[in-house]
Amino acid sequence: MELWYTEEWTENTRFSIKAEKQLFSAQSSFQRVDVFESKEFGRFLTLDGLMMVNDKDEFIYHDMIVHPAMATNMNIKNVLVIGGGDGGTVRELTRYPQIEKIDMVEIDKMVVDVSREYIDVCSCKLDDARVNLYFEDGVAFVKNAKDKSYDLILVDSTDPIGPGEGLFTVDFYNDCYRILSDEGILVNQNESPYFESYAREMKRSNSKIKDIFPISKVYQFHMPTYPSGHWLFGFSSKKLDPIKDHNKETWENLNLNTKYYNSEVHKGAFALPEYVKDMLDAK
Amino acid sequence: MELWYTEEWTENTRFSIKAEKQLFSAQSSFQRVDVFESKEFGRFLTLDGLMMVNDKDEFIYHDMIVHPAMATNMNIKNVLVIGGGDGGTVRELTRYPQIEKIDMVEIDKMVVDVSREYIDVCSCKLDDARVNLYFEDGVAFVKNAKDKSYDLILVDSTDPIGPGEGLFTVDFYNDCYRILSDEGILVNQNESPYFESYAREMKRSNSKIKDIFPISKVYQFHMPTYPSGHWLFGFSSKKLDPIKDHNKETWENLNLNTKYYNSEVHKGAFALPEYVKDMLDAK
Repeated sequence: MELWYTEEWTENTRFSIKAEKQLFSAQSSFQRVDVFESKEFGRFLTLDGLMMVNDKDEFIYHDMIVHPAMATNMNIKNVLVIGGGDGGTVRELTRYPQIEKIDMVEIDKMVVDVSREYIDVCSCKLDDARVNLYFEDGVAFVKNAKDKSYDLILVDSTDPIGPGEGLFTVDFYNDCYRILSDEGILVNQNESPYFESYAREMKRSNSKIKDIFPISKVYQFHMPTYPSGHWLFGFSSKKLDPIKDHNKETWENLNLNTKYYNSEVHKGAFALPEYVKDMLDAK
Repeated sequence: MELWYTEEWTENTRFSIKAEKQLFSAQSSFQRVDVFESKEFGRFLTLDGLMMVNDKDEFIYHDMIVHPAMATNMNIKNVLVIGGGDGGTVRELTRYPQIEKIDMVEIDKMVVDVSREYIDVCSCKLDDARVNLYFEDGVAFVKNAKDKSYDLILVDSTDPIGPGEGLFTVDFYNDCYRILSDEGILVNQNESPYFESYAREMKRSNSKIKDIFPISKVYQFHMPTYPSGHWLFGFSSKKLDPIKDHNKETWENLNLNTKYYNSEVHKGAFALPEYVKDMLDAK
């Protein structure tokens, strides 16, 4: 027999992975959660039939959500992670000695539990002493958080359908602005420019954020197991610019031995193709 | 009924496109040639079951094979294209008024004939007065070409299995070096770093070229319909460096209205992820 996991990238496009076996499958209060074992990608975790993380390329996503912001503001002490239940984002954050507190707000406890059991490469630092886990709605969490209480917010969310929906709203972004310190940075999962449904959400979220943050840019990376492999994060801040304020030497002196991110990638990631720029600039 | 075109990206990974119908299918002397019509990607041409071009993203590949070299040496007059039977590479070259001659050497006439009939978006400039078509083996063609007779060679080949194999050999690269002018540039299809079989060929061809050309770099682009979506070209030359010798203003004054390439992408494309650099640097 053969067992194939198939993901619909669009109605007319499919990506399939040969699985050795299914290790976990359950419906949480929020979504369907699955874990598979495969030869090509090792273990992989999916939510509602969409790839979240796998052993082969989780390092790309987690490098790129964390390091560009950290290399822009080397004084980040208090971090808020919204979503990110697998733990990979927290793992990368714990590599920075200057970080004092990491609050992670994941709405679905099952994702964390499953990652702890099956995806050790991501969940391995969730017990770091600086990490506080909250199993709550991220939208409500930021609404109740104090002004200027975080230096960095990382929105490590699913797509804006299902539990991630509220994390793509003006109210949510306004609260993020309010609770960020003066040198604070917001990084948000910003979808993809290639397939139409993803491009629509990319444009919508970017257009909302641009109206709120004085500095708002988008950067890209090669993420082969996400639809089209061309994925984006938003970088927004009250005053720091990821290129002008890039602390190349200070960051390099940390010797983090990253596998995707480096100082050249930091700059190159913000060099968007013409068709992506056109989409983001369109009214 | 549903008709699905499925490509094996690896033994354990598949990419599938829902097709409306198959427009052409034949076995040439060299390979199997197919054309399909689809909603998501428009028309697409495959060779031996591998995606070559489609309406949706051919512009990315053809922008990136042509413009980085042209923006580095604005005096390119004589160009040799090896492969590229669909015509998209030639189309982009014909946009430069300074180019006087484009020799295109495609081993398989059927690819050109099929592209002329079905893929007009690519083949539309094959009758430009500066274009000379040769239906010959590219390896023999460069062996017989005169010293320093081209300013630019673009190796727009299939993978190194089947008819493209000879275009990944030391002999071929040595002939390319010999027939390039002193300011000449070689751009070669350099595979992909992500899946193992492609990464192996990426390393092999890069390692051969590095021993021959004083300047040899690799640059990347987001090509969603190629395996992993992370694709590379090699940029090699006798003395011009794509970053130091980048003619940003002169190129921009041409107002070519490219859809993927721009002057920021020119620089950013050479900023390779750490794991790709490690692979290329490994002995």
